[in-house]
Amino acid sequence: MTAKLHCFGESGHSYKVALMLELTGTPWTAVFVDFFNNETRSAEYRARLNQMGEAPVYVDGDLTLTQSGVILLHLAEQTGQFSDGDPNEILRWLFWDNHKGSSQFGALRFLRNFLPEAKRPDGAIAFMQGRVDAALATLDARLADRDWLASDQPTIADLSCCGYLFYPEPFGFDPDKHPNIAAWLGRISALPGWNHPYDLMPGNPSDRAEKEDA
Amino acid sequence: MTAKLHCFGESGHSYKVALMLELTGTPWTAVFVDFFNNETRSAEYRARLNQMGEAPVYVDGDLTLTQSGVILLHLAEQTGQFSDGDPNEILRWLFWDNHKGSSQFGALRFLRNFLPEAKRPDGAIAFMQGRVDAALATLDARLADRDWLASDQPTIADLSCCGYLFYPEPFGFDPDKHPNIAAWLGRISALPGWNHPYDLMPGNPSDRAEKEDA
Repeated sequence: MTAKLHCFGESGHSYKVALMLELTGTPWTAVFVDFFNNETRSAEYRARLNQMGEAPVYVDGDLTLTQSGVILLHLAEQTGQFSDGDPNEILRWLFWDNHKGSSQFGALRFLRNFLPEAKRPDGAIAFMQGRVDAALATLDARLADRDWLASDQPTIADLSCCGYLFYPEPFGFDPDKHPNIAAWLGRISALPGWNHPYDLMPGNPSDRAEKEDA
Repeated sequence: MTAKLHCFGESGHSYKVALMLELTGTPWTAVFVDFFNNETRSAEYRARLNQMGEAPVYVDGDLTLTQSGVILLHLAEQTGQFSDGDPNEILRWLFWDNHKGSSQFGALRFLRNFLPEAKRPDGAIAFMQGRVDAALATLDARLADRDWLASDQPTIADLSCCGYLFYPEPFGFDPDKHPNIAAWLGRISALPGWNHPYDLMPGNPSDRAEKEDA
């Protein structure tokens, strides 16, 4: 049976896994999670799929995994791909991404783009922008003299940290201000099998705009 | 040579590791990091200890590790302690803690307690409070029918997720609102060798108040 990824297009955390599945040639099917209608926070979703109330959820036969970092480590071990390097260094960037990177990129992108304009909290946006700018500066500095974050080859650390960086909605990443990140994203998107998040997973802002207009 | 932990008392991320070292009987010495005078963000600190500009940093001979999750996994493997259970489930709560737990608890505690009152950003505090309350609800629900987060025994997942929850400075954890978390903290503090963060690591708010008064 093909593995299933419960995911949605706007979710950078889901994208990390979808991208890994594509790049490793692992067969998978997407199951749409209706995040914008609160599916992940419903009691039913928490009971059936993930008590944490989050996407992605990866289901392969009897195995159910949540947290993108856990799923990436599992797929790296299963496929033997995107795992060459010092395991501690790979883990280090996976944890950094969850702590300071994608977690904050995703939250700020939501505030700045997906909340109705009247509901956008200015104070929260300014605070998160400061934290996101600091994280982007750390990432850009790390990539000043190397091609990949954790090894001399692309690893799951790269796939994790890039989770939100291909999206068009602005949250602070600027190729002119962060040239090393921009060059690294270029290298990632040149990997055979790479695809954009809105082309890999169901659901995107245009879909939602159409539904709201209907 | 005894392992060194670069840390400071207010850092719940450091506390996770200090607690693991104590509970496993691993010899260690603390090296004070002057976070409140911006040591972690200095170019010198980034070059010498951690490019990410964060504490803790763990140094054991030639091995230098950063990110509390990485250090906890290393110590679990080295000591064979706090690691009994499904490795994916342990990892899952380590990642959740970095993504939704300690990362947000620490940021909000800083905003509400350690920033000078005139500088506390109301909008950011309200936003972070909503996120922290959601995370605490997830943690409390998880512990409704079990003693430990990831296994039938205490693991590094518990030591990670409790990182900020023993501190006295308020950020939303309330034993009356979160009785399952409170009971679980009681079980953790009953483990032989347990100690409070301000008793394990150098630096605490009273120290700083005295220095500011001097």
